Amino acid sequence: MDSLDLLIKNLSKLPGVGKKSASRIAYSLLNSSMGFNETLGLEIMEIQSKIKKCSICGNYSESEICEICASFNRDKSLLCIVEQPQDIQTIESTGDYRGLFHVLGGVLAPLDGIGPEELNLLKLVERVKKENIQEIIIATNPTLEGDSTALYIAHILKDSDISITRIASGLPVGGDFEYADKLSISRAFRGRRELI
Amino acid sequence: MDSLDLLIKNLSKLPGVGKKSASRIAYSLLNSSMGFNETLGLEIMEIQSKIKKCSICGNYSESEICEICASFNRDKSLLCIVEQPQDIQTIESTGDYRGLFHVLGGVLAPLDGIGPEELNLLKLVERVKKENIQEIIIATNPTLEGDSTALYIAHILKDSDISITRIASGLPVGGDFEYADKLSISRAFRGRRELI
Repeated sequence: MDSLDLLIKNLSKLPGVGKKSASRIAYSLLNSSMGFNETLGLEIMEIQSKIKKCSICGNYSESEICEICASFNRDKSLLCIVEQPQDIQTIESTGDYRGLFHVLGGVLAPLDGIGPEELNLLKLVERVKKENIQEIIIATNPTLEGDSTALYIAHILKDSDISITRIASGLPVGGDFEYADKLSISRAFRGRRELI
Repeated sequence: MDSLDLLIKNLSKLPGVGKKSASRIAYSLLNSSMGFNETLGLEIMEIQSKIKKCSICGNYSESEICEICASFNRDKSLLCIVEQPQDIQTIESTGDYRGLFHVLGGVLAPLDGIGPEELNLLKLVERVKKENIQEIIIATNPTLEGDSTALYIAHILKDSDISITRIASGLPVGGDFEYADKLSISRAFRGRRELI
């Protein structure tokens, strides 16, 4: 197997890239400017060492604390809980939300062996105690697992004085944040309601 | 702009990869095993220095002469002319053709400034003189440019004793080899007819 086949094989392991797309990408890399390949290759090699998780919220960041947590312009009384760091980017792109975030790193999925210990929940309880949060918006995906995780979080925080809300299902049920349109996300944020 | 944005921006320059796919790939790279990123990054950086063009046919190859030109099991009386090296891979995958290849590196496109000098034609004429070729199969894409290029090649080789054929249009007209199914390619090869 030569270098080209190996490259195609590895490219086709990327999400959404099949064998034909991988081969098309590989051939375009053969014809691209040498500088582009150097840059892209190096970026791929270094991305994991450059990007860390924010020590406060779990968002991806190049520094110890991410831009959102470090900002003075955010509403620190609002905390939005999301499944994955990429959900933050999607929500930020709507420009509707000005509070802070907290990344769970997944959802409860007992069948896959993901229980409360696997999620970033201890730090959430800690933040709720230390920070001056007035409302927690649970923005996990509107799936079975996302909904149960929302209920679970509402349950463990029910003794605090904080208002706990769930985004409205403006997103299609069974869907995923990653592919939602901005309008649906905005509507979901506006239509949020008390969970308990 | 941080490393993640830069990576997403460069990934979205690849063919068939939009902004959302690029972002999805970037996040998956953040979560993939470190070894995979090292390997893929290095492969992308090194692909151009590892893969050269075969000095006989113009196919991509890791050695001076590609596997097909160097093989003793090919029918050296047959020469198939293709536009791009990736067309060879597609034709080879049908298993129908056992002759040699010649890569033009494009098609005649006067409006884009691609004339006969820009194509790998001098070497073709040389091969026709030196090698014992009995039939030339012109397998450029069945597009306007591919058809005119086929006629042009037939014209410059018309004084030789070689039979010059064009693959049958089993492929949909206006289409592209890269996306054709194997059956259509096989049928096109079997249905080839004399051009002049």
